[in-house]
Amino acid sequence: MRIDIITAVPELLESPLGHSIVKRACDKGLAEIVVHNLHDYSTDLKHRSIDDYAFGFSAGMVIQIEPVDRVISQLKSERSYDEVIYTSPDGEQFSQKMANNMSMLQNIIILCGHYKGIDHRIREHLITKEITVGDYVLTGGELPAAIITDAIVRLLPGALGDDTSALSDSFQDNLLAPPVYTRPADYKGWQVPDILLSGNEAAVREWNYQQSVERTRRLRPHLLDE
Amino acid sequence: MRIDIITAVPELLESPLGHSIVKRACDKGLAEIVVHNLHDYSTDLKHRSIDDYAFGFSAGMVIQIEPVDRVISQLKSERSYDEVIYTSPDGEQFSQKMANNMSMLQNIIILCGHYKGIDHRIREHLITKEITVGDYVLTGGELPAAIITDAIVRLLPGALGDDTSALSDSFQDNLLAPPVYTRPADYKGWQVPDILLSGNEAAVREWNYQQSVERTRRLRPHLLDE
Repeated sequence: MRIDIITAVPELLESPLGHSIVKRACDKGLAEIVVHNLHDYSTDLKHRSIDDYAFGFSAGMVIQIEPVDRVISQLKSERSYDEVIYTSPDGEQFSQKMANNMSMLQNIIILCGHYKGIDHRIREHLITKEITVGDYVLTGGELPAAIITDAIVRLLPGALGDDTSALSDSFQDNLLAPPVYTRPADYKGWQVPDILLSGNEAAVREWNYQQSVERTRRLRPHLLDE
Repeated sequence: MRIDIITAVPELLESPLGHSIVKRACDKGLAEIVVHNLHDYSTDLKHRSIDDYAFGFSAGMVIQIEPVDRVISQLKSERSYDEVIYTSPDGEQFSQKMANNMSMLQNIIILCGHYKGIDHRIREHLITKEITVGDYVLTGGELPAAIITDAIVRLLPGALGDDTSALSDSFQDNLLAPPVYTRPADYKGWQVPDILLSGNEAAVREWNYQQSVERTRRLRPHLLDE
């Protein structure tokens, strides 16, 4: 799978993409992630600017359509893309189900949003899908792009060290994960539940399932309706 | 405001915290963000490990209670904290309202989650608030911690260059922002709406408001009920 990320602040993506599971998946050839600096596509060779004042009395700078059109056009001339995604508070809510579906795509572009917005014509004519990671405002779309990338890439077969790990994640069966414990069994008098130390695998699995259901019902009841 | 972030993978946080508005807010003295490497608090001086196998037949490694207790205890001995936050898919949904409230706190700790979880006793005894940034599974809690930090820090007075910017964000009045446009007014035949070029400020403001209401009703109707 190939993910092209277009951003005006590529430095923000260096460490989220340069470590941990995303990095390892790239090293293994499971994913190719290419970050494009929007300033490289500026129409202004001298200042490399990519934003301008908004029409109509709005505060803040707005990303221009031309640099975005240039980079997307170039990418599309090289290969076909399943989606051209824009990260925006207005978008469809990102979810585990969406991550699962997107992990089966071949090539996607993610255009990082900008907190005061991008020229709306980009969204009307160049973007195929708008995604929000949640109802809150961020400095830019780089962290959302990193989140989408991380959630997708870890689902690619072979990306996690332990092949069973992704299947037992929270949400994969619309249930939150059960509580987990590790050594020591007693820490300052705080005990691990006896059942987990019992060695009775059937009883432990039943306990885990009951805990998952109870936690989901109490903490995220809407997951049970999906 | 001071934010202490505890993580087993501090490298993941370098670039999200080292650039853009978060960095500038720190440089201006508006925020102090300190990242703590959980491995520095390992009980295992040789390997600096901080995780161990889960009790009870679960796959994957679990973060131990002792290193976490050590770092939190040390921080609490130095100052008092308003919240000790854990980023987890089970937590309370992060929102702009929560960001607004948290931006008025003095000192918070954020413990980054780990995708297979942390010893549940940490959550029972050391954590005061669990937050999720959305219903999806990530490699770790570092990106959620970066999101929470970014959303809060940009609200601190003086953090944004333009003081009116945060007030006109999406969500601040439970409305999505209106579409924005910048030059050129005509790009490949795609036009900026005439009203925005009219120079009639009252008409533009009315148009913006109507667009915000219409977009919110269509795209995020739940915001109107809050």
